[in-house]
Amino acid sequence: MIYLDNAATSFPKPEAVYEAVMHNMKNFGANPGRSGHKMALEAGRTIFRGREMVCKLFNIDDPMQIIFTSNATEALNLAIKGILEQGDHVITTSMEHNSILRPIKTLEKVGVENTLIQCDERGVLDPRLIQQAIKKNTRLIVTTHASNVTGTIMPIEEIGRIAKEHGILFLVDAAQTAGIYDIDVNALNVDLLAMAGHKGLMGPQGTGVLYIREGIEVRHFKEGGTGSKSQELFQPLMLPDRYESGTPNTPGIAGLAAGIEFILAEGLDKVRKHEEELTSYFLEGLKEMKKVKIYGPQDAKKQASVVSINIEEEDSSEIGYILDKVFDIGVRPGLHCAPMAHKTIGTFEQGTVRFSFGYFNTKEDIDKALEAIKSICEQI
Amino acid sequence: MIYLDNAATSFPKPEAVYEAVMHNMKNFGANPGRSGHKMALEAGRTIFRGREMVCKLFNIDDPMQIIFTSNATEALNLAIKGILEQGDHVITTSMEHNSILRPIKTLEKVGVENTLIQCDERGVLDPRLIQQAIKKNTRLIVTTHASNVTGTIMPIEEIGRIAKEHGILFLVDAAQTAGIYDIDVNALNVDLLAMAGHKGLMGPQGTGVLYIREGIEVRHFKEGGTGSKSQELFQPLMLPDRYESGTPNTPGIAGLAAGIEFILAEGLDKVRKHEEELTSYFLEGLKEMKKVKIYGPQDAKKQASVVSINIEEEDSSEIGYILDKVFDIGVRPGLHCAPMAHKTIGTFEQGTVRFSFGYFNTKEDIDKALEAIKSICEQI
Repeated sequence: MIYLDNAATSFPKPEAVYEAVMHNMKNFGANPGRSGHKMALEAGRTIFRGREMVCKLFNIDDPMQIIFTSNATEALNLAIKGILEQGDHVITTSMEHNSILRPIKTLEKVGVENTLIQCDERGVLDPRLIQQAIKKNTRLIVTTHASNVTGTIMPIEEIGRIAKEHGILFLVDAAQTAGIYDIDVNALNVDLLAMAGHKGLMGPQGTGVLYIREGIEVRHFKEGGTGSKSQELFQPLMLPDRYESGTPNTPGIAGLAAGIEFILAEGLDKVRKHEEELTSYFLEGLKEMKKVKIYGPQDAKKQASVVSINIEEEDSSEIGYILDKVFDIGVRPGLHCAPMAHKTIGTFEQGTVRFSFGYFNTKEDIDKALEAIKSICEQI
Repeated sequence: MIYLDNAATSFPKPEAVYEAVMHNMKNFGANPGRSGHKMALEAGRTIFRGREMVCKLFNIDDPMQIIFTSNATEALNLAIKGILEQGDHVITTSMEHNSILRPIKTLEKVGVENTLIQCDERGVLDPRLIQQAIKKNTRLIVTTHASNVTGTIMPIEEIGRIAKEHGILFLVDAAQTAGIYDIDVNALNVDLLAMAGHKGLMGPQGTGVLYIREGIEVRHFKEGGTGSKSQELFQPLMLPDRYESGTPNTPGIAGLAAGIEFILAEGLDKVRKHEEELTSYFLEGLKEMKKVKIYGPQDAKKQASVVSINIEEEDSSEIGYILDKVFDIGVRPGLHCAPMAHKTIGTFEQGTVRFSFGYFNTKEDIDKALEAIKSICEQI
């Protein structure tokens, strides 16, 4: 299969990721941070190495500020619900994923107000609208770094500046960009950074990360054994233990560390440039096809390697089905868990057919995708 | 290393578990339940197969009632906090792990009362005390199936009967027993069953399970993309989607399914008998050593394959350290995230040295452990 669904999860992983998972499971598959024997200590070092790798990639000083979660959704829930409380106001955008929208809608019930900034039909956000939406009780701004529907890159540098000027916390959802784009949490004034471990970071599924800037109070929502301060009946407040109750996904984190190491060795620039080239090449090829409607910026410099299209009025699921069955190409049709984004770009009914490229895709993959789309267009 | 720390995580795993993890990652590492292409569907089938395996082992009718979590702690948090609310009363025991005690202590702050039933110095629970503790507002009884400190098996059959008679929900923490003991949720009147995937079930770390009996309302605490009803801004209430937001740990669940399949093929009885034999053999060997104090029932029929000891007044961590460094034996000393259990058996200051056996341990392992303990005794 030609796998063009990297926005859902990256595939394949670097060989070193598979090896790291197996090496952990077969050689030191003990419980990290609990017992003190050799195998447990080695497992603990693996987890710590994972934290260090995340720090290296995002210019974070202290590995203790890195929280491992089971996915980006958990990281976003933890950040959003751990910060906002009754009387607070949060600003977000119409391009967000349900992992941001649903927690924010849920918080309405406990008296947390929200403003949803409308993006334009290409998913582009005007940062001045964020500035204008700020109220006295605005506690948090949450935006994705790049839309999972159109790939549209958000102006997080400007938003970070606005947030800092107003003393408002800034949470970025880097699910589509971590491991591909340069994100310096200090330079960009990002207070909290949530990400999936299994997309651009090339780790296994079952991994996510939340970075919390030092000094920010985030309430935890799970308590349990932390392997620390076991004598106390209340959750210890030190990081990262406060947020990491129970046995972690050690093989997953071993793989994630290997994934980030791979990216650092290849160079973030090289990864990004390759994906930009593929996106650009795909967009170029699509432009000749009159029946194809392309959404988003249509500019590889302004979008992550995610391209949403439709073919005339055809149902996106139908096109996805044909791409799979006839052409052996894997994409994701539908609403991509981001209903407001589809309302924003006018595809709430039809959905879109989303092509998303990864570092291991080639120009030949794109050629085959373009041929397939062309062939479908001819038969409609 | 002779690994005797299976109560923390089982090691090694059956070969089929490693293979299942790799097979998933390398051959169909797509996102399950999201896209509809071949690889995604195969990933989805893997998850479903995991649910079916859990059902088979615990006599559960409907795979949709199986919720995959990141560990037992998350499963327990979900159950405890999803059921209890202001004005409710919960009954639990003094032998519980912090993954039960800490959520229950946290709920005190929102007006959930609790009664902690005192077990005897061997960790044994008298079920009549549960009956006596029931109040008009008792909503939930939570007990472990077997203590992670002494291995003491709790009378869950009697407690289940009491709970059913009084219309009270019964949550069992099977972290130490799932995959080893026969747990029929229907016969035992267990309404909610929480477990780790990486202990007796022989799956990878990063996996846990919560079974919720049909019709029980459990509030979710994470919202996000579920791959279902994407158009809605509120979390869908159908199971298991309601509780499984974001990308699951597909390789972990693939491994867990293989682990359960292995257990079913070997036979639960065979697994339990082997562990009972090891425990019995270890207890027998210890009895000759006068400097050794053994905690718990000291009867392999009354305890899981977990044995806690101390050597005179020596610090448990020191003994754990010597076992590792000098004898290459991995155990877990300390409080085992269960402070009240240590108060119950009188070891809150000293902790205990915990030996826990798994299906892949042999009598030779036990012999070496006994020799090591004997040698330490002689040198003190």
